[in-house]
Amino acid sequence: MAVCKLTYFNLPALAEPIRFLLSYSEIDFEEIRIEFEQWPSIKPTMPFGQVPILEIDGKILNQSIAICRYLAKKAGLAGKDEWESLLIDITVDNINDLRQAIASQAFDKNDESKAKKYVTLINETIPLYMNKFEYTVGENDGYFVNGKLSWADILFVAIIDFFGYLAKVDLLESRPKLQALKKNVSEIPQIKSWIAKRPAFSYDMSNNN
Amino acid sequence: MAVCKLTYFNLPALAEPIRFLLSYSEIDFEEIRIEFEQWPSIKPTMPFGQVPILEIDGKILNQSIAICRYLAKKAGLAGKDEWESLLIDITVDNINDLRQAIASQAFDKNDESKAKKYVTLINETIPLYMNKFEYTVGENDGYFVNGKLSWADILFVAIIDFFGYLAKVDLLESRPKLQALKKNVSEIPQIKSWIAKRPAFSYDMSNNN
Repeated sequence: MAVCKLTYFNLPALAEPIRFLLSYSEIDFEEIRIEFEQWPSIKPTMPFGQVPILEIDGKILNQSIAICRYLAKKAGLAGKDEWESLLIDITVDNINDLRQAIASQAFDKNDESKAKKYVTLINETIPLYMNKFEYTVGENDGYFVNGKLSWADILFVAIIDFFGYLAKVDLLESRPKLQALKKNVSEIPQIKSWIAKRPAFSYDMSNNN
Repeated sequence: MAVCKLTYFNLPALAEPIRFLLSYSEIDFEEIRIEFEQWPSIKPTMPFGQVPILEIDGKILNQSIAICRYLAKKAGLAGKDEWESLLIDITVDNINDLRQAIASQAFDKNDESKAKKYVTLINETIPLYMNKFEYTVGENDGYFVNGKLSWADILFVAIIDFFGYLAKVDLLESRPKLQALKKNVSEIPQIKSWIAKRPAFSYDMSNNN
């Protein structure tokens, strides 16, 4: 891969798993971090009006999860066979469902339904997903699938702090297996190096880091 | 694959791409179609409280798109290399984004926001996605990716009528390339045979078929 250019907001969210995977693979990448004021003029130029996009040698790719899967295959993190790849894909989509539930609440513009969703999110959705994740990682020697590192683990660790920021709770509290997973992934040298050098995001995540 | 059992509602929606791909591969499958009255008692027994699930030799799988990708790999419909697989995955996720926009409007319980979303859906979201899809299929010899059949085409055709049912418009109207794609996929002998023999769904889709 020659020239990689990632365009997103100055946030972790959907782009941070891509940044983690590029870093893991030691692929240099240029970043364009869009300020919110710029977005209305940039949006119409993006595929389907959305970011992140990744340009690889001038080819523009959208859909962050598809991009992550591609990078993971190149990095040997996408499963040893079709069955293992399936289990990883299922895990990623389960994590993404939780993301969508959290985002749907956080970005709801109607105060009444936003408040209602928050009750369900905190009392039902987050415990359901996070307890299952904790159990699964406990059963699989500290990883989501088959006792070894995959891109599901990397994606989870890259995005979990943002989940906590949006949902205003520490999702890893009382979940030691997932805490250990976060620690393990964060200590992979290439990931550790990325976390140390990444530019600050444009909001305060200090409560969640 | 020995014994396959698919559990979903008596609807096309998220399960029909799985049914199409199983049929394409001539894999026999048993179906359990849940009545809506049964759902509250079944929901807690499902992974993350959701369907469809596919059981393969007793192993329970959730996440319809991950399941489709797995079946597609087995069927040789998931790309000839990692780049082609990426382009197919991006297409599938773009189609899925349109599905989510349509579902978010159709299942909105607040009358005011439902009405507002419908205006955006009809005037902006559907034209944006469907015109791009029409253009892409026109540029790729009648298929979404690289001028040949992939699981993106099958998924699209399996679900497009349901999109129309929910959005109350014919999404293929004035989009001849996508109409031709639907015709071509529907005439694949295994798919044609499935459409002819599938049990009737529990709502009237006659306006969209």
